[in-house]
Amino acid sequence: MTATGEQVFDWIDARAEDRRRAGLTRQLRPRGADSTLLDLAGNDYLGLSRDKRVAGAAAAAALRWGAGSTGSRLVTGTTELHTELEHALAAFCGAQAALVFSSGFAANLGAITALSGKGSAIVTDAYIHASLIDGCRLSRADIAVMSHGDAKSIKHALSTRRTEHALVVTDSVFSVDGDLAPLPALAEACREHNAGLLIDDAHGFGVLGEGGRGAVAEAGLIKEPNVITTITLSKSLGAQGGAVVGPRRVIRHLLETARTFIFDTGLAPASAAAALAALNALKEEPERPTRVRDNAMTLAMRLREAGFRASLPDAAVISVQAPSPSDALSWADECRAAGVWVGCFRPPSVPDKISRLRLTVRADLTESDIDKAVDVIVRCAPPGAAQR
Amino acid sequence: MTATGEQVFDWIDARAEDRRRAGLTRQLRPRGADSTLLDLAGNDYLGLSRDKRVAGAAAAAALRWGAGSTGSRLVTGTTELHTELEHALAAFCGAQAALVFSSGFAANLGAITALSGKGSAIVTDAYIHASLIDGCRLSRADIAVMSHGDAKSIKHALSTRRTEHALVVTDSVFSVDGDLAPLPALAEACREHNAGLLIDDAHGFGVLGEGGRGAVAEAGLIKEPNVITTITLSKSLGAQGGAVVGPRRVIRHLLETARTFIFDTGLAPASAAAALAALNALKEEPERPTRVRDNAMTLAMRLREAGFRASLPDAAVISVQAPSPSDALSWADECRAAGVWVGCFRPPSVPDKISRLRLTVRADLTESDIDKAVDVIVRCAPPGAAQR
Repeated sequence: MTATGEQVFDWIDARAEDRRRAGLTRQLRPRGADSTLLDLAGNDYLGLSRDKRVAGAAAAAALRWGAGSTGSRLVTGTTELHTELEHALAAFCGAQAALVFSSGFAANLGAITALSGKGSAIVTDAYIHASLIDGCRLSRADIAVMSHGDAKSIKHALSTRRTEHALVVTDSVFSVDGDLAPLPALAEACREHNAGLLIDDAHGFGVLGEGGRGAVAEAGLIKEPNVITTITLSKSLGAQGGAVVGPRRVIRHLLETARTFIFDTGLAPASAAAALAALNALKEEPERPTRVRDNAMTLAMRLREAGFRASLPDAAVISVQAPSPSDALSWADECRAAGVWVGCFRPPSVPDKISRLRLTVRADLTESDIDKAVDVIVRCAPPGAAQR
Repeated sequence: MTATGEQVFDWIDARAEDRRRAGLTRQLRPRGADSTLLDLAGNDYLGLSRDKRVAGAAAAAALRWGAGSTGSRLVTGTTELHTELEHALAAFCGAQAALVFSSGFAANLGAITALSGKGSAIVTDAYIHASLIDGCRLSRADIAVMSHGDAKSIKHALSTRRTEHALVVTDSVFSVDGDLAPLPALAEACREHNAGLLIDDAHGFGVLGEGGRGAVAEAGLIKEPNVITTITLSKSLGAQGGAVVGPRRVIRHLLETARTFIFDTGLAPASAAAALAALNALKEEPERPTRVRDNAMTLAMRLREAGFRASLPDAAVISVQAPSPSDALSWADECRAAGVWVGCFRPPSVPDKISRLRLTVRADLTESDIDKAVDVIVRCAPPGAAQR
C-alpha cells in the first residue's frame, strides 16, 4: 500500500468529537456592516472604531501610504505615522517612549522574551492573558505562577528567588472578570526586590485613570524606572495593533532585540493613523472613559439585583457566571437571537473553568440600551443562572 | 536606602554597549509618504500595496466597517469581509479552507502549536523563519533541527522518531537567501513516515506557481491531506495579516484551538479588504509574478557579473554577502544615501552569521530601476565585497 498521508491528522477528528461532547465547540459568527445587534461583546470601549474621525483617518492613510507597511519595522515598515503615534502614546501616558507592534499579543511576546531569559525568573498571577502566558513560555525563564490577586505570594517568590534578574508579569484589568490587579503592592514588591514589573493594560488603557491614561498611570507607576506597560490599539483606540510604553532604554532594547518586532511586518499605516486619531479624540473628549465606567457599574448592579453572579467591574468588563459551558452557550445564543450580542467564555478561555457570559460596555451606550440588555439577559437566562 | 527600582534594567545598557561594539546596533528609518528612494528592501513584491484598487478597497472598508475588527475572531472580530477573504484564498490556492490571522507571525505560532505538542516530534530546517522557530519553542514538542536544505536528514529523523505524531516545519522560500526548500522530497518523506508538513510560503505566495499560487501549489502539494501552508497578506498582497491554508479539518481545528487565533484581535477590516482586492488584481494580471521572477534573476545575474556573492533567486529575494556586519551596514547606508534602499541583514537575523545586503525585487521595477540599483550597489561596495 502506498502511503498517502490521509491518516496523519485523524487525531484531529477525535479531539473535535471530545470538544463537541463537552459543549466546547466554537463557531465564527460573521457580522455584516449594518448589523443592528446591540454589541456587548466587542472591545470598542470608547465607541471610537466607527467614529468618523477615526475611520476617516484610516481611510486617508490607506490612500496616502498604501494598504500595508511593506516590511519589518526595522526595514521599510516604519512610516512617519508610526513614529508620530509612538511619540503621541508616550506623551499621553506620561512615559519616556513607546514602541508599536502589529498586535497586543505580539507586544506581550516581544516584551517578555526580550526582558527575561534563561537564568532569570518570572513571577505571574495565575489569571494572566494567554499572550502573557505564551510570552513566559517562550522566555525560557524560571516561571512561578501565584494564585490570582495574591501580591504577598508574588513578593515572597521574589524575595526567595535564586536568580539575579526577575520580572513580575500581570494584567492590570483581568480579561475574564474585569477585576483590577493589586498594582501598588506589586510595584512595591518589585522595587524592594529589584525586579521589573510588566503590566498588560489592554483593558485599562482608555478606560481608567485621568482622561483614560490607564490603570498604570492611575496607580502612579507609569514613570517608574522598572515598570513596563503594554497596551492595545484595538480596544479603546478602536484600531489594530499593540504598543509597549516605558523607560527609553527598555524601548530601545525592544527595538533592537524583540523578535516579534524585528521579524514581523509593521502595522498597516491605516491602523496607525486610526489609533492616532482615536488618541486625539480621547484627548478632546476626556469624559468618554467616565461614561464607560458609569455604564459598566450600572449594568453590573442591575444584573446583581436580578440575582446573577455578575462581577463588580473595575473597568468595562463584566462577567456573569453560567451553570455550565452548554448553558453559557445557549444563553449567549438566545440573547443574540433577541438582539443583544454578549460574549461567551468557556474553557480554555476561563482560568477557573467556570463558563460565563462576558459583557463589555461602551461609552456610547444609552440608558435604553442598558434597559434592553438587562431585559434580554434576564429573559434568556437558563435555570440556575440567577440565585433567586 | 530606599529601593527605587533604578538599577533593575542596568543590564540593558551593558547589552546595548555589546551590540554597539559588534556593529549590531539597529535603528528605525521612518519613511515619508512621498519618498523617492528606489525601494529594494520591502516585501511588496507585486507592487500592489499602493495600487489604487488595493488602497481604495482598504479606505472604503475602513469607512464602511470602522477602523478595527473590535474583538477576537471568535467574538465580534469576524466580519463578512474576513469570511469572503478566507473563501477567496482557499479557492485561489486550490485548498479546502483558509483561516486569516492578524499576522503571518501569528499564523505560524498558531498553526505549529495547535498541530503539535508534548509527546510529538517536530523536525525542521536550520534556516526557518523566527516565527516558525518561536512556534516550535512554544509547542513543547521534541524538536530536531537539521542542516539547511537537507531532506535526507529530515527523512531520517522522521523514520527514527519515537513519537506517534510528527510535523516537519519549513519555509518554502527562505527569507535570507531566497532559496527554495526541497518540497517534493520533504513531502515524500512526510507521506512515507506519516507526518504532517507545514510550509511557510510567505515569500513564495504571489511570486511562484501558476498565476502566483505559490511554491506549495507549484510543487503540487496544496491538496495533500497532510500539508498545511501559511502565507502572509503583507507581502505579495500588499496589506497586513497572515493566513493558514489547508485541509478543512485542520482549519477547523485551528479555529477552535490556535491560541493566536482565539486570543488575538481580528485583522482590521481595511487590511482584509485590501488583501481581497490584491488577490483579485493578481487574478486579473497573472503576469505580475512572472515579472517579479524575471526582474530578480536579471538583478542577481548582473550583481554576479560584477563579482558579488549574490544568491541565485528562486523567487524575489536576493542576498549579497558582505565582509562584516559593519561593512554591510555602511554599504546599505551608502546605497540609501545614493537613492537605493536595500535591506541589511546581520546577526541574529542571519542563521549562518554572515552579514549581507538583502535585496527584494518588485513586479513594477523598470529596466532603468535595475540599472540604477546595480550602479549604486557597485559604487558603494566596501573593499572585499566583490571577488574581483
